[in-house]
Amino acid sequence: MLSTTPRTRLTRSKERGRTSREDLYAVLDAGLVCHLGVVVDGAPRVIPTGYGRIGDTLYLHGSTGSLSLRGPGEVCVTVTHVDGVVLARSVFHHSMNYRSAMVYGRPRLVRDEEERLAGLRAITEQLAPGQWDATRPPTRKELAATAVVAISLDEASVKVRQGPPSDDPEDYATPIWAGVLPLRLSWGAPETDPAMTSEVEVPAHVSSRPDPGR
Amino acid sequence: MLSTTPRTRLTRSKERGRTSREDLYAVLDAGLVCHLGVVVDGAPRVIPTGYGRIGDTLYLHGSTGSLSLRGPGEVCVTVTHVDGVVLARSVFHHSMNYRSAMVYGRPRLVRDEEERLAGLRAITEQLAPGQWDATRPPTRKELAATAVVAISLDEASVKVRQGPPSDDPEDYATPIWAGVLPLRLSWGAPETDPAMTSEVEVPAHVSSRPDPGR
Repeated sequence: MLSTTPRTRLTRSKERGRTSREDLYAVLDAGLVCHLGVVVDGAPRVIPTGYGRIGDTLYLHGSTGSLSLRGPGEVCVTVTHVDGVVLARSVFHHSMNYRSAMVYGRPRLVRDEEERLAGLRAITEQLAPGQWDATRPPTRKELAATAVVAISLDEASVKVRQGPPSDDPEDYATPIWAGVLPLRLSWGAPETDPAMTSEVEVPAHVSSRPDPGR
Repeated sequence: MLSTTPRTRLTRSKERGRTSREDLYAVLDAGLVCHLGVVVDGAPRVIPTGYGRIGDTLYLHGSTGSLSLRGPGEVCVTVTHVDGVVLARSVFHHSMNYRSAMVYGRPRLVRDEEERLAGLRAITEQLAPGQWDATRPPTRKELAATAVVAISLDEASVKVRQGPPSDDPEDYATPIWAGVLPLRLSWGAPETDPAMTSEVEVPAHVSSRPDPGR
């Protein structure tokens, strides 16, 4: 079960809330990019970035020089999947079908070399499954240039909207088309780097990667 | 031209920066959802939400009871398109192809009825082009329940990465496949609301909506 804190308690559209950790994992694991919110000089900053998950820990990485993950401040990490546009009979009830997760926490700079590698592996595999073992591993120098932070999934909320529009009762009789226009994500054909110096087949984990889905 | 302020000046991957207002418009206009960053009790909060643009103003809406758009605080609005996964010869150089825009500003609560309607129209049409005129317009009561805010596009930055991986020179000779796995968004077949009480054809602006693209 996801715990409820004042800021993860839904105040609106409560019926969209999900409360199991499995729902949280499913939303996080289906994503490629999260939006990381930090406070810089009192103002919010929202940065798109990759991430990975191991159990109840989220891992993010950045250059050791980057500001966003430094400092002891709290962050908010949001992952959103838009599944479709909800076309209602009234302008007012237009909406989106979506799955989203919000995680609040205080990033912990990972110093343990083993956990750092595990975190980087999780981040790489979330972006590109199979690539950690298929490509050149990080050098000592590359590792030194990379900061890895861990964020606990202790404080998180999940919101999901699916299905047809919810119109006002009196609008259902109007002859206005209503429904959902689903949005799909799919991988295109792999584009081989023109700088490839030898003939290498596209590996199966790339050419047969399942489309990002639900 | 986009103006440069300390926080919109890129400190890393400067070659990914774009500086024309047309680049900003293109990224914003191609999106369905933005990630709105606000500061609540000193901590960041990142909320996915719809938006619309008219000229150099971004419009967002919410329930009049919602916390996120109230108050005089600054916000950051980020729109991100993931165009593909960049598969390098080394773990370290894995990346994403993307287009993203970040807008900083202080939301202005729109009180003028004409601008409120124009803002709501822009938000609706961004989500669902053609629907503003095809569906029941908002009632006085619905309008009263909706807060509309305007954010100037004065302070914004755009970052774009496209193309093959950039590996270290010594890695190009290794027989490791490298390239890009493109990610595509497409609309599925419209799903008519099962609660439709009359036979109405799917309107052309829904059935023939161009896929979200570049």
